[in-house]
Amino acid sequence: MNFETAQTRPRSNGRGRRGARRREAGTPAAEGRPRTRQLRNPYRPIEQFTAEEVEAIHETSMTILEEFGLRILHPEARARLAAAGAAVDEDSHRVRFDRGWIAEQIAAAPRVVGLHARNPERNVEAGGDAVAFATVGGPPHFSDLEGGRRPGTLAAFRDFIRLAQTYDVIHLLGPAVEPLEVDTALRHLHVTQAQLALSDKVPFIFCRGRGQVADALEMVRIARGITPEVFRRQPSCYTVVNSNSPLQLDVPMCQGIIDFAAAGQLMILTPFTLAGAMAPVSLPGALAQQNAEALAGIALAQLASPGAPVAYGGFTSNVDMRSGAPAFGTPEYVKAAFGTGQLARRYGLPWRSSNATASNAPDAQAAYEAQMSLWGALMGGSNLLMHGAGWLEGGLTASFEKFIIDVEMLRMFAALFEPVRCNEADLALEAVREVGPGGHYFGCAHTLERYEHAFYAPMLSDWRNYGSWHEDGAVDATRRAHRLYKQALADFVPPPMDPAVGEELDAFVTRRTKEGGARPED
Amino acid sequence: MNFETAQTRPRSNGRGRRGARRREAGTPAAEGRPRTRQLRNPYRPIEQFTAEEVEAIHETSMTILEEFGLRILHPEARARLAAAGAAVDEDSHRVRFDRGWIAEQIAAAPRVVGLHARNPERNVEAGGDAVAFATVGGPPHFSDLEGGRRPGTLAAFRDFIRLAQTYDVIHLLGPAVEPLEVDTALRHLHVTQAQLALSDKVPFIFCRGRGQVADALEMVRIARGITPEVFRRQPSCYTVVNSNSPLQLDVPMCQGIIDFAAAGQLMILTPFTLAGAMAPVSLPGALAQQNAEALAGIALAQLASPGAPVAYGGFTSNVDMRSGAPAFGTPEYVKAAFGTGQLARRYGLPWRSSNATASNAPDAQAAYEAQMSLWGALMGGSNLLMHGAGWLEGGLTASFEKFIIDVEMLRMFAALFEPVRCNEADLALEAVREVGPGGHYFGCAHTLERYEHAFYAPMLSDWRNYGSWHEDGAVDATRRAHRLYKQALADFVPPPMDPAVGEELDAFVTRRTKEGGARPED
Repeated sequence: MNFETAQTRPRSNGRGRRGARRREAGTPAAEGRPRTRQLRNPYRPIEQFTAEEVEAIHETSMTILEEFGLRILHPEARARLAAAGAAVDEDSHRVRFDRGWIAEQIAAAPRVVGLHARNPERNVEAGGDAVAFATVGGPPHFSDLEGGRRPGTLAAFRDFIRLAQTYDVIHLLGPAVEPLEVDTALRHLHVTQAQLALSDKVPFIFCRGRGQVADALEMVRIARGITPEVFRRQPSCYTVVNSNSPLQLDVPMCQGIIDFAAAGQLMILTPFTLAGAMAPVSLPGALAQQNAEALAGIALAQLASPGAPVAYGGFTSNVDMRSGAPAFGTPEYVKAAFGTGQLARRYGLPWRSSNATASNAPDAQAAYEAQMSLWGALMGGSNLLMHGAGWLEGGLTASFEKFIIDVEMLRMFAALFEPVRCNEADLALEAVREVGPGGHYFGCAHTLERYEHAFYAPMLSDWRNYGSWHEDGAVDATRRAHRLYKQALADFVPPPMDPAVGEELDAFVTRRTKEGGARPED
Repeated sequence: MNFETAQTRPRSNGRGRRGARRREAGTPAAEGRPRTRQLRNPYRPIEQFTAEEVEAIHETSMTILEEFGLRILHPEARARLAAAGAAVDEDSHRVRFDRGWIAEQIAAAPRVVGLHARNPERNVEAGGDAVAFATVGGPPHFSDLEGGRRPGTLAAFRDFIRLAQTYDVIHLLGPAVEPLEVDTALRHLHVTQAQLALSDKVPFIFCRGRGQVADALEMVRIARGITPEVFRRQPSCYTVVNSNSPLQLDVPMCQGIIDFAAAGQLMILTPFTLAGAMAPVSLPGALAQQNAEALAGIALAQLASPGAPVAYGGFTSNVDMRSGAPAFGTPEYVKAAFGTGQLARRYGLPWRSSNATASNAPDAQAAYEAQMSLWGALMGGSNLLMHGAGWLEGGLTASFEKFIIDVEMLRMFAALFEPVRCNEADLALEAVREVGPGGHYFGCAHTLERYEHAFYAPMLSDWRNYGSWHEDGAVDATRRAHRLYKQALADFVPPPMDPAVGEELDAFVTRRTKEGGARPED
């Protein structure tokens, strides 16, 4: 796949989804087979708020930015913003923004971001009607049925990357689990090397200080085999910057915003606004605060490098008001997702959402909360789905079985996004005439011509009758997922890599390790 | 709750959802608490097809009805249709319909059906933006974790009715499981009595012959304590008529259509069109056939009694083309649901869909397939959700644990349907000012005023942290569902019933039992 870079892509008016999709869908071969490489969402997004309400949320967020502003802990960011005309109070670190200036910065951001993998067939877009799925990222623990829940390791990290590489429906790598045994000054080298060696998909980089980001970006560039100049024009990796809600941006986050903008790499600004805890208990209030934080961070990126690839992240959920525990995949989570999509589209920004659950086990609760999250995100029109596969326990555990369950669900969405062709042959009048009342369609010509690709073929779901399933051990979906992940790891073959590139990466890691790596937040 | 009867309700233009909903939602007390008694769907339905494609499906179904027609096995129905001008071939039992006549009949059907329970607080509407949920109906088996899967019994039937009565989010009773030990001539008496004694919600009646329907309708009338005249004006129970796809209506189904129309009770005409088996393998073809069957049956109802309460049932799914096994909650199922909603709205008919899964266990697969079905149905704009709680194994088993899992999911949809208020206080600028950067909202006035009803409170989902959950036995969702259903049965108190009405019902059952009941299809 080839596409223009984010920076040069022309802006379109609206999404124009259906027409474009339908034209593409003309070939019989495409029908029924999930086109997992580049997903396009053909549905009109579900809306939570009226246009007037969206404007009211927008206006509230602008008032927040103008009257209260954000506390920005990074001196360089404050200096840059002051130079651009923001009202900066160096004692409180408060920065107040003019809404007109914010609007100008946001308008400079690309509507669609093209992400370049080291294998061009793994390139994906995000924005407009383009959708990309990423794996889980960040948990300190991992788990499977066999070993239970335990602290993250590099070996587990590598296994999650192998799974991410295995399934076509995963487009972007996530920092699956934190390899806690690896020295924090070297960890970025090992996780970046693992992503680049075991997968040819787009990798993830944490913003944990200028030195680590510089190392990781250089490794991604080496893996792609391109010049620094081309790398700067082609987003080839991504990061997530979380604001410290409410209304605060810390040093490594600001540094990451600036460094990723300067490097031309994708930065997703995601406030983690749990309504009732770090944000107002009312959804419009939580969304207004989310919006203020997201737009301020994105504006800083555009100030650092106009046209820098960015995405609007939304992660508004709620806490359980009895215990203070965070909840995910709730009705409020879905409503917040629908509303966030409306806001992101108002600004023409790619929108990032998540596949989340609070369940402690890869069970029915994990499945239904994940489905609620997925429908909220995807029918709300999300472009980038983080934590798409493997997230459990509110993000504290990466689960191998949940990974497989999620992959099945993502594959179903990929198939759902396939348009339905509706021409004369599809309307099947001849087949109805052939079969007649009381007959069956199994053997008719219309069926035989189409059956191979007519329907979604499951990977995890067991559709056998009860007798066959029961005789075969009555294995439930979670235990089947366990078998599937073990088999996928056993079958894994790493994607090819030019040996010279591999050697250059190894040499880089060896040298930087000898030099002591980079301390976090250096 | 009071409402006009179906027959007298004026037709509205379109659904006009959002405006009406928002006006109702003005009271703070309503916020965040699922209004489970009468649900209103505030979302614009998702559409699968363009308006032109919907017309093409409609036109194809009209061509089917005009050129091939249906095979109608019931002599009285053929005679009535012939008298109304249909082209009837008495040798082949083929009946061909004029599309203009079909359109006239459909136009006579009510847009919204008001269903009257014996407790008026349990009255519900279906149609427009009104939504009602029913329990599972029809499986020959039932199951729970303790006893496994076993043949249906009257005791199990009664337990499912007790659960249906327990949860407010269930609006309509379903014939939960077939009580196989009860003589088929007496079964209708026992299941109707169980529904009327153990619940004050709207009951279900099977169309298994004129005698059984007459008995059951009389029992419903007795339970409501109304005259035959009022009963005929107030739909107080419902049935489902399945066409024998492709393009066939059998004797008890036709009889049921006629008897329910004459009695003024709700009849849902649901073709069971599995694409690739009983319907064309292509979705537009399957939907065209579904549409022809549904409209023919509904037209027969309107011919029997103009204005009779009816609903358009859609149950188009697909088979696994490798095994022929039926599949549910698939991407194709969702697309068929979205398309069916468009067809039903084209005719202004209430639309019935289902919460279905092919899973053999109440596990993660059951949860994600059910969620796919639910989102397809409810975001497609469905008004009546059959098999809402308890359906497993493609409808061959009613599961107690699945019942609880489904109730949790339905409660989440009820909460999702609650509108989000977006006034100045909800935008929470004052709270943002009060809390400031880096603070938290737990104790602020804005939170304290709202927290009690701000968010969905789960019944089955466990949001505790991993440590608490693990120390408490690490019980997964399915096992928690088992405990919840046992507790609900232990806590069950039947709703009050006027003793005179109870005696009249008992006397009726005693008399009809002495008379030998009614053979099926009599």
